[in-house]
Amino acid sequence: MTRYHRLADIIGDRIKQGLYNRGQRLPSVRALSVEHGVSISTVQQAYRVLEHRQLITARPKSGYFVCQQHGLPALPEMCRPAQRPVEISQWDLVLQLTRTRSARDVIHLGPGVPDVTANTLKPLRKLLSRVALHPDLRSLHYDELSGSAPLREQIARLMIDSGSHVAPEGVIITTGCHEALSIAIHALCQPGDIVAVDSPSFHGVTQILKGFGMKALEIPTDPLTGVSLEALELALEQWPIKAIQLTPNCNNPLGYLMPDAHKVALLTLAQRYDTPIIEDDVYADLAYHYPRPRTIKSFDEDGRVLLCSSFSKTLAPGLRIGWIEPGRYMEQVLHMKYIGTGATSTQPQLAIAEFLRQGHYLKHVSRMRARYQLNRDIMTEWVQRYFPAGTRISRPQGGFLLWVELPPAFDTLRLNRQLESKGVQVAVGPIFSASGKYRHCLRLNYANRMTPAIEAAVKCIGETVAQQLEACALLTPAAEAAQDGQ
Amino acid sequence: MTRYHRLADIIGDRIKQGLYNRGQRLPSVRALSVEHGVSISTVQQAYRVLEHRQLITARPKSGYFVCQQHGLPALPEMCRPAQRPVEISQWDLVLQLTRTRSARDVIHLGPGVPDVTANTLKPLRKLLSRVALHPDLRSLHYDELSGSAPLREQIARLMIDSGSHVAPEGVIITTGCHEALSIAIHALCQPGDIVAVDSPSFHGVTQILKGFGMKALEIPTDPLTGVSLEALELALEQWPIKAIQLTPNCNNPLGYLMPDAHKVALLTLAQRYDTPIIEDDVYADLAYHYPRPRTIKSFDEDGRVLLCSSFSKTLAPGLRIGWIEPGRYMEQVLHMKYIGTGATSTQPQLAIAEFLRQGHYLKHVSRMRARYQLNRDIMTEWVQRYFPAGTRISRPQGGFLLWVELPPAFDTLRLNRQLESKGVQVAVGPIFSASGKYRHCLRLNYANRMTPAIEAAVKCIGETVAQQLEACALLTPAAEAAQDGQ
Ligand SMILES: Cc1ncc(COP(=O)(O)O)c(C=O)c1O
Ligand SMILES: Cc1ncc(COP(=O)(O)O)c(C=O)c1O
Repeated sequence: MTRYHRLADIIGDRIKQGLYNRGQRLPSVRALSVEHGVSISTVQQAYRVLEHRQLITARPKSGYFVCQQHGLPALPEMCRPAQRPVEISQWDLVLQLTRTRSARDVIHLGPGVPDVTANTLKPLRKLLSRVALHPDLRSLHYDELSGSAPLREQIARLMIDSGSHVAPEGVIITTGCHEALSIAIHALCQPGDIVAVDSPSFHGVTQILKGFGMKALEIPTDPLTGVSLEALELALEQWPIKAIQLTPNCNNPLGYLMPDAHKVALLTLAQRYDTPIIEDDVYADLAYHYPRPRTIKSFDEDGRVLLCSSFSKTLAPGLRIGWIEPGRYMEQVLHMKYIGTGATSTQPQLAIAEFLRQGHYLKHVSRMRARYQLNRDIMTEWVQRYFPAGTRISRPQGGFLLWVELPPAFDTLRLNRQLESKGVQVAVGPIFSASGKYRHCLRLNYANRMTPAIEAAVKCIGETVAQQLEACALLTPAAEAAQDGQ
Repeated sequence: MTRYHRLADIIGDRIKQGLYNRGQRLPSVRALSVEHGVSISTVQQAYRVLEHRQLITARPKSGYFVCQQHGLPALPEMCRPAQRPVEISQWDLVLQLTRTRSARDVIHLGPGVPDVTANTLKPLRKLLSRVALHPDLRSLHYDELSGSAPLREQIARLMIDSGSHVAPEGVIITTGCHEALSIAIHALCQPGDIVAVDSPSFHGVTQILKGFGMKALEIPTDPLTGVSLEALELALEQWPIKAIQLTPNCNNPLGYLMPDAHKVALLTLAQRYDTPIIEDDVYADLAYHYPRPRTIKSFDEDGRVLLCSSFSKTLAPGLRIGWIEPGRYMEQVLHMKYIGTGATSTQPQLAIAEFLRQGHYLKHVSRMRARYQLNRDIMTEWVQRYFPAGTRISRPQGGFLLWVELPPAFDTLRLNRQLESKGVQVAVGPIFSASGKYRHCLRLNYANRMTPAIEAAVKCIGETVAQQLEACALLTPAAEAAQDGQ
């Protein structure tokens, strides 16, 4: 964490604790610089961070003031999906999202891709290059089915930060988190089975359920604390749920951290109904607060949690290296790994293992964490500024994804069509629901440098949203009149 | 092809055409050297090749003679598997095979891995290294779901040699041929469905069927021409077969090439019963005769053939790059690709595409073809020399795998246990059957340089086989006596 971020946190805490009141003038830059023994520019940067977080506001020539109302935008509402298992649709929209990734001359705020331009990633590229040339030719051979031993060792060490103590032999390397999720679901469930998922949820999982002919039961999810335990308990009571799949830390798309107490309660519930939990941990090393949040798995005592993760969000998605810690389901999951792809690509495994071993990983991730947190504040501010009043915005605690909720009349599919000619694209809400809910929502990626071009893109999206909503408002009375006339 | 190989082929053809009769003395080394304008040593090497092929034999101080009977060993018998669908077993043995790959100080004649030490592979390693360092960072990003466009283009061009004209858009890149086979089967069949397979067949496929809860119907297979069309027709008549899966070219493990006429007849049969064909083409670029054999797909007119292949046998298995041309099943297969792994690893795709574009691939493959053909002759000779009389051996027309059949009393699982302390391992027969047949068979890999260490290993296997068979012979009368006594 940088010096100015630390200072910003200190002052932010004072504001939250009420040491500075709303509307009150904050100490001058010079005074703070003396108090904390830091440079003037450090204080200025700290104040800028707090501005981005909308805790304070600058008044020209008068200094900085605590915001009147802490400026946090309204949160998305808790969804109330139909409480019954559904067949999954939305494949066409998901396919479209994967396709836009490769289109050029378009600002893609849709896909869940990290920033891969940081200098802290350079050692990885060098290692990849070196591994390819290594005279022992190991990188050309099949690796072990469960993955390269040095990498599994490093992952086992990494997972200690999440509160887990898993032996390297308890880890299977996979082709991204995608394969981890796929083989977990395949190992646990049969066609026709019901799987409970958080809602909104990662589209990869619902499409996996679709592919295996399974059904999704979407559980209402709070935008700050995650899946509703009451709703989940009711669902477990009512349906023969074969597995619970969720992303409790730095959730995609909502960005929340499930509180530890909820994790424990969820586990107790799963034990009571003897249901396995498939936990997706893919963004958790990007939580803005260090040490990183604990996993549900770290509280697990009987091996019922299958932890799925990857380096796609922390390092680079093109490497396709993920892992699964399948707990007591090791044997079945290993068979599913074999039938899916056989071994995993050798070269990136060797390079990543070395990148971790040399200590580059923590450095890189801590850099990205700070950057994404700053970007979140900037992106939030832009959405507040450029989107119509009444827009609800998630409050991500990690990762690089923002969830935006608009009034019910809004249609995000229409938005993306309207944006096509303007060279901007977002991720449309319905892909995050098995049954196509969230048509009035969209997801924005804030991983990349927050350039004027991206600000212009957000502005363009906001204006297009406003136009669409105005057109709706204009149309609605007419439509009502037309109906009245019938 | 080397000069002496060319000469060996010329003389070999003359023998086959009857220009030199059985038992007849061949021209002297000097005479041939004058006739063909080549060096003495070239002729000597050519004669050595023909000795290895067991077409000629050297008599000390008298010269070379055409063999009395061309010396080809007896072929394995056509198997007669039970003509009903079976549940698949043998996972433990397959897992064991994948594990031995990583054990050190052991001569592994089991796994199906190519020789990756050839100089002609060096440009690939350089390209892999270069791609990792490329400033555009493309290799770090998710690739398109269906794979990198330049690679799909190169594969479409490559497949022209197999008689196929497929557009790049008709190709999906996969994580090895393994994933190609897995998503093909998943796209076509449901749990409980029956799939017809050649027998013996690649264990990956039977395990995939097991993983999806499907059943295998093993079709008898001729060691020279492949699957019995009569048996297949009978099976199609009798059972609701959802797909036919086979490896018609350079079959694993038998090494045969299915004649083109059979390919056409098979396709006609599949049309009549409206059954899709999953064709595994993974070794076909290693057929000893150039141009490479045609695929069944090249005769396909209604898109019912799903062609699966990879660079695992021709280049390097650790790269995990394969492909599928799913014909009319494009949409379903693409969905299965998404749910299995999402995108495929980017870096090796970019490097292989460039390796092909620069023309390195054909050069490498033609080198390996020649080497493997020579190795086949040497390995065949060694097995004939060191294994007990009565051993039956396949006659591979491509690839690097030899199938060895022993008398019914022989137990290949016991053999591998006996070989453990001797630092040698083979692939055991039962993994090549859904129901654990072929316990009296084994498979040997002859991809690597045929060193004295490998000869010693083959000798050791042969002796251990002989001892086991002798012990059986000794035991059997006793066992019979014991039975008589009851
Ligand atoms: C929550 C979540 N899980 C898994 C994945 C897939 O990760 P990978 O690229 O490692 O397969 C993603 C990527 O979008 C994701 O957002
Ligand atoms: C016939 C056959 N098909 C497919 C495969 C798997 O190939 P890949 O390593 O590309 O997944 C093999 C490898 O053993 C094989 O022998």
